[in-house]
Amino acid sequence: MAVFLNNSFLDDEQALLHVSDLVIQRGYAAFDFCRTVNGVPLFMHDHLERFYASAAAMHLAVAHTKEELTAIVHELVQISSLREAGIRLMLTGGYSTDSYHLAEPNLLITCNPVKTVSAAEMTRGVSIITYEHQRELPHIKSTNYLMAVWLLPLLQQQAADDVLYYNKESVTEFPRSNVFVITNDGTLVTPAHNILKGITRKKILLLANEIMQVDERNITVHELASAKEIFLTSTTKKILPVVKLNGATIGDGKPGPATLSLYEKFVALEQIFYPQINAD
Amino acid sequence: MAVFLNNSFLDDEQALLHVSDLVIQRGYAAFDFCRTVNGVPLFMHDHLERFYASAAAMHLAVAHTKEELTAIVHELVQISSLREAGIRLMLTGGYSTDSYHLAEPNLLITCNPVKTVSAAEMTRGVSIITYEHQRELPHIKSTNYLMAVWLLPLLQQQAADDVLYYNKESVTEFPRSNVFVITNDGTLVTPAHNILKGITRKKILLLANEIMQVDERNITVHELASAKEIFLTSTTKKILPVVKLNGATIGDGKPGPATLSLYEKFVALEQIFYPQINAD
Repeated sequence: MAVFLNNSFLDDEQALLHVSDLVIQRGYAAFDFCRTVNGVPLFMHDHLERFYASAAAMHLAVAHTKEELTAIVHELVQISSLREAGIRLMLTGGYSTDSYHLAEPNLLITCNPVKTVSAAEMTRGVSIITYEHQRELPHIKSTNYLMAVWLLPLLQQQAADDVLYYNKESVTEFPRSNVFVITNDGTLVTPAHNILKGITRKKILLLANEIMQVDERNITVHELASAKEIFLTSTTKKILPVVKLNGATIGDGKPGPATLSLYEKFVALEQIFYPQINAD
Repeated sequence: MAVFLNNSFLDDEQALLHVSDLVIQRGYAAFDFCRTVNGVPLFMHDHLERFYASAAAMHLAVAHTKEELTAIVHELVQISSLREAGIRLMLTGGYSTDSYHLAEPNLLITCNPVKTVSAAEMTRGVSIITYEHQRELPHIKSTNYLMAVWLLPLLQQQAADDVLYYNKESVTEFPRSNVFVITNDGTLVTPAHNILKGITRKKILLLANEIMQVDERNITVHELASAKEIFLTSTTKKILPVVKLNGATIGDGKPGPATLSLYEKFVALEQIFYPQINAD
């Protein structure tokens, strides 16, 4: 792991925080995650926009400009020698003197190997379950994944790949992904409220607008069960078809045509920015 | 700060965690907090019971027995030379290889100076506001205080001392304290559901049962506003009268007789365990 902490590039074993930091004491830090394609950060501008917005919403000031952060991330990727890397940006509540009130934030950026979805996983699709939960401060990307990690044993027990949260009757999002539905009339629908707006979600909406009807609105758990196609989107998963919902098969249990079409368009979009690589 | 990390007593500057720990990456750690009176941990047995229960509910195994933890805490207090100390017990999700799945937990215990409520603060009482929010996994004491820290600027803006969460119509708890109400017929009421059951709350219920009618049930925000007395309880605040709610005066704006009576009984309870000190 290559690390940048405040003003220094560090080796893995130097990547330490004092326990008085509010990210440890109170789980308080703004967060973002992006990946590189062939050594170049993908959609960096969007991720930085969101990171600064999360930090501001959490009353945390980023000491660096976006240009400086971009340069730091590029240097970190170079130090790591990784072609496919996951970049974690974190701005913590800082070394608090009373373990409660904000101090000067610590900026932590790490660069690790990352695995995107394989062609086989894409062809197979994933099995999901639903769970009633509303993320706290959903518009902010923070380090609060308490519920997500807590639910991992349930996923294993139910032999499910991921969990889709719902709030009252409406589905919202996965712990780390957004949800999309193709309705029976071929419209692409995704929730608009009580969610974190993913960067991949944003790109899919842009691409889909050119080729199909698109609607951002509430989706009930009931409507989800009768969807023609379901897929999820995230930075590492890109577009991943959902073929099973709470044990019931969705569509014919295989990735649907609209999902595959959007997947192809998304991979093509990546290639526009990175023409040197081949789509897998 | 005196520190115990896994198997070692450390100085403050050695109290470091690697950033791969899930408490940093995902805000995932069981937590507890107790204080010492004249150098001796108060209600240690109750706090350890709850700490082990939180850890178990979070799928984290404590490597030490309760007897071992008790001995470690006593030694840590001795090392610190503090008479009035706050002890933080934390069991983290550990150094995860993928920043998501649980690893071997890290046990962190810190010992810091602590300030309890002064006689002047007790006489003055506190001003509170209400805010709609339900803590995630409320029965578990974890390091997730995202909402609590996030609301601090609102408290400052409203010149309030603390915020009382409510879920739909019913009040639940403060970020770090429980709420009690004296109704107009003199009954002591406190919420029973969707809360963390505080150790001070438990002691107050035991004491109150001897001298008044006690009821654990839902309290609406509306009922709260017409309460005869309101107070909060916590390890550092003991019993603290609430004299203002959302800008409106409670009772005659002074600590009420039932609150003061329970406060006296609680201080006397402390003295049973620590006869060498004087109540302040």
